[in-house]
Amino acid sequence: MAKARSTSAFLPSMQTTRSRGSPCPRFRLREVASMYFTMIMVFLIILVVALQGTAPRENYFPYKVPLDPQQLLELSWNVSYPQQVVHFQLFVKEPKFGLLFGMSDRGEFENADLVVLWSDGHSSYFGDAWSDEKGQLHMDSQQDYQLLKAHRTPEGLYLVFKRAFSTCDPKDYFIEDGTVHLIYGILEKPVHSLQAIDISAIHKGLQRVQLLKPNISTPELPNGMKTMEIRVPDIVIPSQETTYWCYMVELPDSFPRHHIVMYEPVITAGNEAIVHHMEVFQCAAEFDSFPHYNGPCDSKMKPDRLNYCRHVLAAWAMGAQAFYYPEEAGLAFGGPGSSKYLRLEVHYHNPLVFQGRRDSSGIRLYYTGTLRRYDAGIMELGLVYTPVMAIPPGETNFLLTGYCTDKCTQVALPSTGIHIFASQLHTHLTGRKVVTVLSRDGRERAVVNADNHYSPHFQEIRMLKKVVSVFPGDVLVTTCTYNTEDRNQATVGGFSITEEMCVNYVHYYPQTQLELCKSAVDYGYLQRYFNLVNRFNDEEICTCPLASVTQQFSSVPWNAFNRDVLKSLYDFAPISMHCNKSSAVRFPGEWEKQPLPRITGVLPEPAPTCQPTLKPLPASPALVNLGRVKAE
Amino acid sequence: MAKARSTSAFLPSMQTTRSRGSPCPRFRLREVASMYFTMIMVFLIILVVALQGTAPRENYFPYKVPLDPQQLLELSWNVSYPQQVVHFQLFVKEPKFGLLFGMSDRGEFENADLVVLWSDGHSSYFGDAWSDEKGQLHMDSQQDYQLLKAHRTPEGLYLVFKRAFSTCDPKDYFIEDGTVHLIYGILEKPVHSLQAIDISAIHKGLQRVQLLKPNISTPELPNGMKTMEIRVPDIVIPSQETTYWCYMVELPDSFPRHHIVMYEPVITAGNEAIVHHMEVFQCAAEFDSFPHYNGPCDSKMKPDRLNYCRHVLAAWAMGAQAFYYPEEAGLAFGGPGSSKYLRLEVHYHNPLVFQGRRDSSGIRLYYTGTLRRYDAGIMELGLVYTPVMAIPPGETNFLLTGYCTDKCTQVALPSTGIHIFASQLHTHLTGRKVVTVLSRDGRERAVVNADNHYSPHFQEIRMLKKVVSVFPGDVLVTTCTYNTEDRNQATVGGFSITEEMCVNYVHYYPQTQLELCKSAVDYGYLQRYFNLVNRFNDEEICTCPLASVTQQFSSVPWNAFNRDVLKSLYDFAPISMHCNKSSAVRFPGEWEKQPLPRITGVLPEPAPTCQPTLKPLPASPALVNLGRVKAE
Repeated sequence: MAKARSTSAFLPSMQTTRSRGSPCPRFRLREVASMYFTMIMVFLIILVVALQGTAPRENYFPYKVPLDPQQLLELSWNVSYPQQVVHFQLFVKEPKFGLLFGMSDRGEFENADLVVLWSDGHSSYFGDAWSDEKGQLHMDSQQDYQLLKAHRTPEGLYLVFKRAFSTCDPKDYFIEDGTVHLIYGILEKPVHSLQAIDISAIHKGLQRVQLLKPNISTPELPNGMKTMEIRVPDIVIPSQETTYWCYMVELPDSFPRHHIVMYEPVITAGNEAIVHHMEVFQCAAEFDSFPHYNGPCDSKMKPDRLNYCRHVLAAWAMGAQAFYYPEEAGLAFGGPGSSKYLRLEVHYHNPLVFQGRRDSSGIRLYYTGTLRRYDAGIMELGLVYTPVMAIPPGETNFLLTGYCTDKCTQVALPSTGIHIFASQLHTHLTGRKVVTVLSRDGRERAVVNADNHYSPHFQEIRMLKKVVSVFPGDVLVTTCTYNTEDRNQATVGGFSITEEMCVNYVHYYPQTQLELCKSAVDYGYLQRYFNLVNRFNDEEICTCPLASVTQQFSSVPWNAFNRDVLKSLYDFAPISMHCNKSSAVRFPGEWEKQPLPRITGVLPEPAPTCQPTLKPLPASPALVNLGRVKAE
Repeated sequence: MAKARSTSAFLPSMQTTRSRGSPCPRFRLREVASMYFTMIMVFLIILVVALQGTAPRENYFPYKVPLDPQQLLELSWNVSYPQQVVHFQLFVKEPKFGLLFGMSDRGEFENADLVVLWSDGHSSYFGDAWSDEKGQLHMDSQQDYQLLKAHRTPEGLYLVFKRAFSTCDPKDYFIEDGTVHLIYGILEKPVHSLQAIDISAIHKGLQRVQLLKPNISTPELPNGMKTMEIRVPDIVIPSQETTYWCYMVELPDSFPRHHIVMYEPVITAGNEAIVHHMEVFQCAAEFDSFPHYNGPCDSKMKPDRLNYCRHVLAAWAMGAQAFYYPEEAGLAFGGPGSSKYLRLEVHYHNPLVFQGRRDSSGIRLYYTGTLRRYDAGIMELGLVYTPVMAIPPGETNFLLTGYCTDKCTQVALPSTGIHIFASQLHTHLTGRKVVTVLSRDGRERAVVNADNHYSPHFQEIRMLKKVVSVFPGDVLVTTCTYNTEDRNQATVGGFSITEEMCVNYVHYYPQTQLELCKSAVDYGYLQRYFNLVNRFNDEEICTCPLASVTQQFSSVPWNAFNRDVLKSLYDFAPISMHCNKSSAVRFPGEWEKQPLPRITGVLPEPAPTCQPTLKPLPASPALVNLGRVKAE
């Protein structure tokens, strides 16, 4: 109903033109011909609308995420791949004078794509808008967010609207795979127009989600499944913005080998907006015991040995649902050769600094003693953690690439191949994009996983939309893009949070001995680079071989030439391959000074395809009937 | 009439749907609402059609060019900038079973955008098509070439059709400023379908034109104008594909100073498709006399002294019209201090090797003794002719950049500035693109001239669409793109046709002393590059300072690193500036080891903007009534 009303508010000029017509005017021959044509169009439009109506897209929203920490705004959504459309339902607990919701490259309010609901105190409007580089709002020339429903309930206001993944409006955000930075803002005073909204003055925030969830059917769970909840023991969430909480758990003695087949989050009610992500790690089997610990992970009191609990068993991040293993595989845990110690890590994001909030969140594992056909495995792709791979300071868009070469997959993978079904991308603070591409016979074949809006603060394990099979001789190339604009020293590779990583943890089956397939530039060639920099520039810089690589990098004068040549070096120099079994044992073979894989055929870039809608979209905002607007 | 018939042939499915309607059917409420809307659309479409009709776009074609050397096909066209549309009239002297006409990046028949008229022996069809990378034809999903007229006369067939500069079809060519490579083909047998056309088997060819002629009004010519025709003396065109003919002309003794205000081509009737381009050069004043010569420019008999006749007075290329100087300026010739010797050069393109064809083509100069307010001048921008600027072999897309720095414009230009009104781009055989951009205060302000489909075989003087004013302190950056795929040695800068140049001859007023504002990389930095290459690669290459730069370049092992680092060097190293008056005298100042201009703000790339048409375009070809199709 709101829909019909809203449609009637489009462009006054159209309404006046409309009054010129009558149901059956007299037309000349030319006009009659045109009439025929337009009737066909009407028919087509009705047909399309009718077909679209068959799916219950406006009522069923399987995905849900709180937008703000107070849970005043909650977003639910569904994805239609055939229609290339996302339907959103936005729940507003205390609608005041409207709100902003939208998307932008990395969560900024400048250059953002927004829907705005605003009220001047009398009427409410819903419009598709964009913000310029200064954050000033403008109405879109074409209204691509389409309002479908707006209704009040005692709990709050529900807005239902839809947006195509890609529109023909260059000001619109292109919804693609991977992380989407959602932004929101709440209008607490009436505004006379969209342009009058001052973004700098409103209560606003950011939430990251994977909007385009994979459309894969849930595998059936076996009978006789057991569950185990690994949860923090009713702790008090520290009253600070960021806490990583560590809690050690012990499996029962002589707990036999099982397969984890599914896991899901267990969130304490009311804390949905604070529990940001959780991971369960298994500890290293070489230690007989681990201390029990329950406290912040960065506490001075945390025993060092907990650093040996790094093997991921389960990982969840806000907005994610249950994680299912494929029907033919499970993740082994328990039994001989595996540690009985697990570490649960919960990241609390508490920007409003709630005090005394208690929490018992964690992860519920579903496991079975009836082992599935295949063990699932996790393999690390990307770069070795070494300072030879470095990013100059002040770069907005610097690429580092790690290789898993044909030579390594040749020796390490079974001839029947392995099947990658999930992936977790990982960098430290300066990571902005990550992508892994599979190549065969020198040609790119498939994207294993890609995130063009990657954030180190949102590292989910993601199910792949399509399982990617890797065979002996295949090449896996992982490229990370970094932004070091705010740094004045080179950022080298390493374990520290201020150093960088470029990793894709791929989840696959059947498990193989290959745990690590990563690379780094050859050390000798990097030394040639330092020599060259020394000679080319008229400066005396320390490249004495006794200095560490980190010291050498920190003494490079970062002019355009030295930056460019470092890029050229990384694109050219041979690599040192880490083609490793567990415990850092290399597969037999020569792995030093290996040539870079030659890849000549590249996949096309995923680009927004502009598909003009059959139905012309309205050019101005819709009037929305929300009943009485609450005057706070 | 043909238009109406052709429209009626669209999609049978539409015709069947059409029969469902009646002039005044009964509609339910929803349909009536839709009817209103579609009526508005009909009204808008009629309005647009009516407005379009006001300009005589389908009858007036000021530009004309023969497509093939036999002049069986002739193209006329006009350009509407408000509508962003080109109207074409294609004249077909002997229509057989159809023809192909279209555009592609560099004149190739693969990945081309085509209109095809084809006949199966009974009916004829007109359709918008594209060819894939193998040259196979496909119908476009949207018919963006719209047939407006098709009529037979005793002389032949006229087809009139139009195309927007840019369409929403990614298979379509984007018509932009600069050279357009037109392609044509003639169907000599009936074909049953578009897909059945075998491009490799048909008679076909290429013609280059500037399609988007500038829309500038012709300046008024003064009274008392004199003309002078500089034409070859009824020569026999050699029976070979390519001839450059040189003919020396002498001005009368004590011919006083005049201003050339206009010139136009004089082409011997019948040779319109063979006379490819013509230039009139003035000889150097330092020589008292030049030998009379009338023969091929590459003849062993040609006196060397003719190489000193290089100052361009007039230039014309096929498809170009008369060249008018702006009302306030003229090109000085005659009078003391200028040579009375002129050299006419005519390029004959005779691919069908006609024998015994006579020619008296040339250029007609319009000049006046009543000097205009300003002398016009010609200034050379770009790169110095020196081997230090080189292109590695096997590059598809290598950029070299020449600078006219703020320091040079500061000392050499008047405070009131100069006004560039025309430009002639120049490279040798591997040049593929040329662009000059004006920057001020570190930000790009205007494109002086750009050709993304530049061909060394089509070097016109082009009037600028908009005069560009250059003031002291401005920077002019000229960038050329080269393709050396077919070479296995580096291509160095120099005068030889197998060496390269990157030049923009800009025509401007008022004339200044600045004749040359060009640059080259600093010699010392280039030597550092050769040292670096020597040390980085494990090879012994000759970089001994005694070797010439050309020899040094030819000994570089061209791997990816050495290529990349050369690019980085050119993007970084200081330059040697040639800020010269005539006869190679530099303006006073320090011109060695100058920093590269820093330009931070760049202009947006000219990109095709997809503007969906109001009227949906047909999705299949049109049936064309051509009367009887001549069965050869």
